[in-house]
Amino acid sequence: MANPKHIALVCPGGPITQDLANQVGEIAAARFGDGVELHFHPQCFLEAGHFAGADAQRSAAFLEAANDPQYDAVWFARGGYGACRLDDTVYDRLDENARRKTYLGYSDAGFILARLYRLGVGRPVHGPMAMDLVHAGGEKAVARALDFLVDDDPAALEPTATGGEKTAAFNITVLGHFINADWAPDLSDHVVMLEDVGEYHYRIDRSMFTVMTAPNMRRAKGVKLGRISQVPENDRPFGANEEEIAQYWCSRAGVSYFGRADIGHDGDNKIVPFGAAASIGAA
Amino acid sequence: MANPKHIALVCPGGPITQDLANQVGEIAAARFGDGVELHFHPQCFLEAGHFAGADAQRSAAFLEAANDPQYDAVWFARGGYGACRLDDTVYDRLDENARRKTYLGYSDAGFILARLYRLGVGRPVHGPMAMDLVHAGGEKAVARALDFLVDDDPAALEPTATGGEKTAAFNITVLGHFINADWAPDLSDHVVMLEDVGEYHYRIDRSMFTVMTAPNMRRAKGVKLGRISQVPENDRPFGANEEEIAQYWCSRAGVSYFGRADIGHDGDNKIVPFGAAASIGAA
Repeated sequence: MANPKHIALVCPGGPITQDLANQVGEIAAARFGDGVELHFHPQCFLEAGHFAGADAQRSAAFLEAANDPQYDAVWFARGGYGACRLDDTVYDRLDENARRKTYLGYSDAGFILARLYRLGVGRPVHGPMAMDLVHAGGEKAVARALDFLVDDDPAALEPTATGGEKTAAFNITVLGHFINADWAPDLSDHVVMLEDVGEYHYRIDRSMFTVMTAPNMRRAKGVKLGRISQVPENDRPFGANEEEIAQYWCSRAGVSYFGRADIGHDGDNKIVPFGAAASIGAA
Repeated sequence: MANPKHIALVCPGGPITQDLANQVGEIAAARFGDGVELHFHPQCFLEAGHFAGADAQRSAAFLEAANDPQYDAVWFARGGYGACRLDDTVYDRLDENARRKTYLGYSDAGFILARLYRLGVGRPVHGPMAMDLVHAGGEKAVARALDFLVDDDPAALEPTATGGEKTAAFNITVLGHFINADWAPDLSDHVVMLEDVGEYHYRIDRSMFTVMTAPNMRRAKGVKLGRISQVPENDRPFGANEEEIAQYWCSRAGVSYFGRADIGHDGDNKIVPFGAAASIGAA
């Protein structure tokens, strides 16, 4: 290989351990040898209550990684919770180097991906994170993320994202928290893929109320439903499964429901670049 | 007593049992004798999955109770989840009789109270529901609700709501789901009281992000924090308590934090009429 891909890892939400970083590094080395260098920012290992360091530390690390010309991509190492607490000024300070990068993550990192997409900064991409390694099928997920980041491997993509469609993908709960923010991206004409994990069906339904009644979402081309996994058992059955919930709210909103998407909090979580597939590789 | 107060009970979310209805009826009779008549709508006892009947049934029952001239008040018998699924057309069909009533409830019922307040229909009021009887201190809560509905008892009020301040009160999670809806009430110059139950601190924080970054909430006079109860223990401590969370987001939003409010999912949950106290009794 010629020049290795340089990938910076930061944690805008929860922290990872050095041990996890080492394991992910070994997978990268085994797969690509000198073709990739992973740069785990020291911030990844900080701990401040729920978070991988204080808001200011997480904000600074993300900004540093994004603006550093030596990195080709910023890979969010873990979700959890915390991305919405980054300093708002970070987004004003992203420079020309930030605009040339790919940003990969999902779930809580969706707060950042959405904001970057709205700003037209770089290439925001939904896909597995380093932390996924600890879950079932995690090695496959981490390998897929690397295949995409290092090689732009089309086999890593969710099938919908390989055509000419504009696509975006979000965790339903996270999207419900920002769909009406003034910095939310315009989802007009997009196929929006939605997934979630660990939420009662009534909570999925309630989040879908917020998501699907938002004017922004009503302009979408349609919705595809990813996996809704680890749904806790409630004291009584909800009375509708997740696909019926999605169809109900799509119908109320007058938005097309296009069936299932191959994304979710699991090893099979596929890659969804934001925007039209034609832009892949253009970064 | 002269004319009894007629109070209609409906369930826009979850159902109640006939047994609970009987117990609440006995409390009302012991407290006010012939001074009050509770009319439990048969819809209260329906069951359809998570809900007290299908959306159409819950919508029809609420509309019927609101528009019936014989009732002085509509008392939401239970929260849970479901109020946001009522038919939108219900709100267009509320008539002059609906405008003369008091509407009492909280938590999930906040979806309806908010919408009525925006429309200027009747007197929306945060306060205990019949279902509270099953919780600790529940009899006290039910008695307080009745004292307010039957006698407009000022002792039932949250202290902030006894002055000239405009007030409103919501469950944080519920408010986060509708704060940006086009039917959300204008909270300008209001003291907004917030409470929640059964949510991890990180979820309270995430909901506060949505609530406090909403332009509507930034126009509020300030926030008072009710009780945040039954917070589950997370795998690691959040690093801030609920009051610090409220202060953090108020500070980021530039909204005043006015300390604690005497509301919550418990027996001490006080009554908060929406709007200025001067309007109490004017309905």
